[in-house]
Amino acid sequence: MDEKLFQERYETYRCAVEEFLSGLFPGKPHWADLYESMRYSLLSGGKRIRPVLTLEFARLAGLPDWHDALPAACGLELAHTYSLIHDDLPCMDDDDLRRGRPTNHRVYGETLAVLAGDALQPEAYRLILTAPGLDDARRAACGRILAEASGADGMVAGQVLDTLHAPRTEAEVTEVHTLKTGAMIAAACRMGAAAAGGSEAVLEAAQVYARELGLAFQIRDDMLDVCGDAEEFGKPIGSDAQEGKVTFVDLLGLEGCGRAVRARTEAAKAAVADLDDDGFLAALADSLAERTR
Amino acid sequence: MDEKLFQERYETYRCAVEEFLSGLFPGKPHWADLYESMRYSLLSGGKRIRPVLTLEFARLAGLPDWHDALPAACGLELAHTYSLIHDDLPCMDDDDLRRGRPTNHRVYGETLAVLAGDALQPEAYRLILTAPGLDDARRAACGRILAEASGADGMVAGQVLDTLHAPRTEAEVTEVHTLKTGAMIAAACRMGAAAAGGSEAVLEAAQVYARELGLAFQIRDDMLDVCGDAEEFGKPIGSDAQEGKVTFVDLLGLEGCGRAVRARTEAAKAAVADLDDDGFLAALADSLAERTR
Repeated sequence: MDEKLFQERYETYRCAVEEFLSGLFPGKPHWADLYESMRYSLLSGGKRIRPVLTLEFARLAGLPDWHDALPAACGLELAHTYSLIHDDLPCMDDDDLRRGRPTNHRVYGETLAVLAGDALQPEAYRLILTAPGLDDARRAACGRILAEASGADGMVAGQVLDTLHAPRTEAEVTEVHTLKTGAMIAAACRMGAAAAGGSEAVLEAAQVYARELGLAFQIRDDMLDVCGDAEEFGKPIGSDAQEGKVTFVDLLGLEGCGRAVRARTEAAKAAVADLDDDGFLAALADSLAERTR
Repeated sequence: MDEKLFQERYETYRCAVEEFLSGLFPGKPHWADLYESMRYSLLSGGKRIRPVLTLEFARLAGLPDWHDALPAACGLELAHTYSLIHDDLPCMDDDDLRRGRPTNHRVYGETLAVLAGDALQPEAYRLILTAPGLDDARRAACGRILAEASGADGMVAGQVLDTLHAPRTEAEVTEVHTLKTGAMIAAACRMGAAAAGGSEAVLEAAQVYARELGLAFQIRDDMLDVCGDAEEFGKPIGSDAQEGKVTFVDLLGLEGCGRAVRARTEAAKAAVADLDDDGFLAALADSLAERTR
């Protein structure tokens, strides 16, 4: 796909997501501080890769209007945002910066940061289960996909292993990232297909594409943590090493990482070759493999 | 309803709930510590009032076999359990004891306590949205009820007000409890009706019953915090005063609280007078009004 067309469609999706998210939690109830803390993290920029994937898979799987998948796409983004807020807490990674801005608990304090994350989870299901353009069967399917990906055998298991089990080998580090970030990227892709009532074959292609894309994304992240530009990357360079985490760079070296990113990107593209009508998914995989932030 | 019959049915429901919950999170994955922490809080006894209410409302609203509402009832109990774990955290109420046992973070540490709570939320929706005896329309309806009750306008808003806004007046204290505990009790009742495909009138009766029952429950709780027996009550007497919280006893006095409990209990019973076929809901309201733990 032509670079300009890719950028245009990505921006169309991204802007629709931003607009939808900015409309959430309006007004000033007594507990406006909670809303403010939730909106602070929810509207802090970010690439919106997950909802973009949901919307594109919804289109590819045959949803007549991809806008109908926006509540589901944004619901998953709410769940992703909760995980970032909690990951940054003092009792987790204890991070001061996220996307170049102070982390939620640095601005609002630990109590409100925990509660903002806690509230984003049910609000995710509320969006998904009330999506106006979907029937209850598709809403429930989307909700199941999120619940499975983000629960005790998915994202949270990954965070437990990452924070408390000090993964060391390539297999262990791969498992952590497959659970911690891969599961939610896969859920984003599958949810788009499910919102469109896609077949089992489409859901399976989405799963494989997402698995390979997610690992390529994480390996690239580890590379940028070593040789990226702090301002562009939005977080301090070398923070993984400082936290004593074993990264793919430690295991494979920078060159090995570059090769792994390329191989996984090709595998991702191959998984959706039949589905990817005009090459948007391939262009997205390529752009993530080459990203500098 | 005869006391013995009431006890028998309550125990039948409660045992079914305990059995269902004990079957969750089996096995020993690499992250067995997460499972253990979740199970520790999930299986720590408790009266199981919420799932019992769900099951009884499911029966009253016409579900042929109330067992079909068990996954939804227990899903809500998972969400309730997550809220207890997080409420006890150092950055919230900083409690050492819950139901007479050390709180989750005192046993497993703060990191795992936050993560156990985080994982219980999606697992709640997973149970509800895969309930074998319900179709997707009823599953989605149950999921919506939980999401609305536990989100940024429900339980979490109540916790924000309680922890960060120091409620002082009767209206403020009532609002906190309506949001913090009332919303989930109402959700339990409504979910039972929704699992049975109950009419809007049944859902509305469930809502009023639960609102009155929930406030009576909380006022009784505040009374027990002043004049209860610590061992029976399961937490230290006077902990509200120590935490500087304004309670219903401060606002209404012990006698005023007694009158309020009786008035709200009668209002709860009146709301379901037409529905409560053999008086189980009335007997439950009475037993909660007189409880000593």
